[in-house]
Amino acid sequence: MAGWRFAEEVALPAALAPGRLLWCGIGGSLLPADALIHALAGASLRHRWQPLASPECNGLRLEPEDQLVFASKSGRTLELWTWIGRLRAQSGWGRWRQAPVVITQDDENPLAQLARAEGWTLLPIPEQVGGRYSAFTAIGALPLRWAGLDSAKFLAGARDVVAQTEQGCGPWGTRVWGMVRAFQGGFLRGTDQWVLLPYATRLETVGAWWVQLVAESLGKQAKDGSRRGLTPIRAVGPQDQHAQLQRWLDGPRNVGVVLVTVGHDHAAEPSDPPSQCPFPGLGRWGGEDILRAQAEGTREALEGAGISVVQWHLDALDEASLGAFLMAWQLVVGLSGMALEVDPFDQPAVESGKRRTLAKLGIS
Amino acid sequence: MAGWRFAEEVALPAALAPGRLLWCGIGGSLLPADALIHALAGASLRHRWQPLASPECNGLRLEPEDQLVFASKSGRTLELWTWIGRLRAQSGWGRWRQAPVVITQDDENPLAQLARAEGWTLLPIPEQVGGRYSAFTAIGALPLRWAGLDSAKFLAGARDVVAQTEQGCGPWGTRVWGMVRAFQGGFLRGTDQWVLLPYATRLETVGAWWVQLVAESLGKQAKDGSRRGLTPIRAVGPQDQHAQLQRWLDGPRNVGVVLVTVGHDHAAEPSDPPSQCPFPGLGRWGGEDILRAQAEGTREALEGAGISVVQWHLDALDEASLGAFLMAWQLVVGLSGMALEVDPFDQPAVESGKRRTLAKLGIS
Repeated sequence: MAGWRFAEEVALPAALAPGRLLWCGIGGSLLPADALIHALAGASLRHRWQPLASPECNGLRLEPEDQLVFASKSGRTLELWTWIGRLRAQSGWGRWRQAPVVITQDDENPLAQLARAEGWTLLPIPEQVGGRYSAFTAIGALPLRWAGLDSAKFLAGARDVVAQTEQGCGPWGTRVWGMVRAFQGGFLRGTDQWVLLPYATRLETVGAWWVQLVAESLGKQAKDGSRRGLTPIRAVGPQDQHAQLQRWLDGPRNVGVVLVTVGHDHAAEPSDPPSQCPFPGLGRWGGEDILRAQAEGTREALEGAGISVVQWHLDALDEASLGAFLMAWQLVVGLSGMALEVDPFDQPAVESGKRRTLAKLGIS
Repeated sequence: MAGWRFAEEVALPAALAPGRLLWCGIGGSLLPADALIHALAGASLRHRWQPLASPECNGLRLEPEDQLVFASKSGRTLELWTWIGRLRAQSGWGRWRQAPVVITQDDENPLAQLARAEGWTLLPIPEQVGGRYSAFTAIGALPLRWAGLDSAKFLAGARDVVAQTEQGCGPWGTRVWGMVRAFQGGFLRGTDQWVLLPYATRLETVGAWWVQLVAESLGKQAKDGSRRGLTPIRAVGPQDQHAQLQRWLDGPRNVGVVLVTVGHDHAAEPSDPPSQCPFPGLGRWGGEDILRAQAEGTREALEGAGISVVQWHLDALDEASLGAFLMAWQLVVGLSGMALEVDPFDQPAVESGKRRTLAKLGIS
C-alpha cells in the first residue's frame, strides 16, 4: 500500500451519459467522489448526483440517461453486489445511453470479470493504492469529468503538495509537517480528539472523507498491544459554532481544532435589513464577510481558552485547492501513522465486522 | 429553562404554501426540523426543503410558491437577520402565495416586532423551553404539518416517554434511566466519547440534532472549575462500519456506542445478482435483511472487543417513534447534566464567540 502519494492521469471514457450519476460504492470508494461533487459542482449537478451506498432499498428507478458507476477496490463489497442485483431486476436495466463504468483493482476479481463479460468500461485502481487513499485515481477523476471540471488541475495541486512535503519546504510542506507534529504532540499530551472545522458549507462532505481517513488509518493497536489513534470529529463552522463550540471551549481539555477558511471575491451582494434589525450596519456586510468574522471570532475564543488551533487558508474552492487539500491530509495521516507506530494502511478490525455480517446471512 | 419535558399542541396556520419550505434558522432553531424532514418526509418533499442557515450567499431566488419561515428563540440571531435582509432585496419579496411564519419567543424581541408590523403569522416558543430542546414546539410541528405528517402522534410519543421516565417504568423509562447511568458511569470510567450509530440512513440528520443536544448541554465547567462533558460522535451504520469502526474497535478504549435499529416489513424486493457475484445466495436477502445482519455483526464485534453498547430498537420510523426518540434524548441529556453537576440548559461559552464575531464586524 505504498501508493498513498499516488496522483497519476487516468484514461477516462470519451463520453458519459448526461443524466444522473448513480454511484454504487461505499467508504473509500464513495467518499472522495461525494466530497468533490459537493465542494465543486454546481447546484443542478449536485441534484443529479445519487450515491447508492447503503443496502437499504430506496425506491430508485433507472432512467436511460443515468450514468451507472460500480466502484469497489476489492470487487467484493456486499453492498455493491446488492445494488447490482437490485438494479439488474429493474425494467430499465441494459437500456442506458452509455454503458456502466466499473472502477476496481484489475486483478480478475468478480467485479472486473463482470465488466469484461458485459463489455463495460473498466477503470483500474492501482494495486498499491489503499481504498481510502484513492481520491487521485478514477474514484476522484470520474466525478470531476462528469461535472465538467478539470482533473488535471486536481492532480497538479496534489503533486505540488507531495513535492513540497518531500522537500520539507513551501507552504504545503510546512503545513503537512506541522500538522503531523500537532497530531503526534497532541497524542502524547492527551489531545486525542481533532475537529475539522471548515468555514465553508461546501466542505461539509469533505469532512466525511476526512473522518474515514483519520479514524480508519490511525485507530490501531501498536505492536506492543497499546491502543493508539485520534478521534476525528466532523463539523462545519457556521453551524457548529452554535452546536459543538460549547463542548470544545468548556469541556474536557482533550480537543484540537483544524480551522479551514476559504478566500472569496468580496463581491457586494444586495442586503436590506428592516428597521427592526437589532444589528446596526448589518447591510454593509456580505455573507462572506460575516463568515470570515465568525471564523476569526471563533479562533480567538478557542485560542483564548488555551485550545490548540491549526488554521489552513485556501485562496479559492477549486480543483487545484481541493487536490492540494486532500493530498495534504493523505500525507499527514500516512506520516502520522508512522510517527504513532501503527500501520496507517490496514484496517484489521473492520474485516472482522464484515465476516460476522456474512455469517449472519449464511454467506461465507 | 424548565421546559425540557415540554410537549404541547401548537396552533398552526390554516394553510402553508405548497412549494419549497425555506427555513431561515440555525442550531436549535433548525436541527429538529431538519431531522424530522429527512427521517419522515417523502423524497419529493425532501427536495423542496431548503434550510437557510449559514450566512454564505447561495444564489437562491424566491418563488411565489415558497413558504418562508424565520425561526429564532431569541429573535436576535445574526445569520437570520442576514437572510431577512438578503431576501428582502430580491424582486420576489412580498409576492408569496402565503405570508411568512415567524417562530420565536413572543417577548417583543425584534423578530416578534417585525412579524407584528408585517402582519405575518407568529408562532411562540414558550419562554421556559431552551433553543436545543425545542423539537416539541412549532420548530418541530410546522415542518411535520408542511410534510403532511401527524404532529399529534409526534407529541403523543413524546408524552408517553415523559410519563414512563417520571414513573421509572415501561420500556422507555427503562431506556432513559439506563442511558443516564451509562453516560454517568462511562464518564467516571473515562468513556467520554459516545457514538450514535443508527442503522437507518434516514436517521443521519437526527445525528446532527443529537450532537448539538449532547455537546452544548453537557460540555461545561462545573462549579468547582473542573471540566466535564461527553463528546458526541455522528455516524450512520451502513457507512461508518466501513469508515469509523476500526477506530472504535482497536483505538483507545474511551468510546461507547448507542446502536439504533429500526423495524421493517420484510417485504421481498426483486434481486438478481449476476453469475460473477461472489456471495452465493445473496438474491435471497432484501436490503433490510442485510442491514439487520450488519447491525448484529457490528454489535457482536463491539461487545466482543469489550466496548459498551446500548441498543435501542424502534419498531417503525414514524411520527410516534421519532417523538419518543427525541424526547428520550432530551430527558437523558437533562438528567445527565444534573448527574454530572453541570447546567444542561445554558451555553455560556458560545455567547463569547458570538460577541467576538459582532466586534469584528463593528456591530455590538
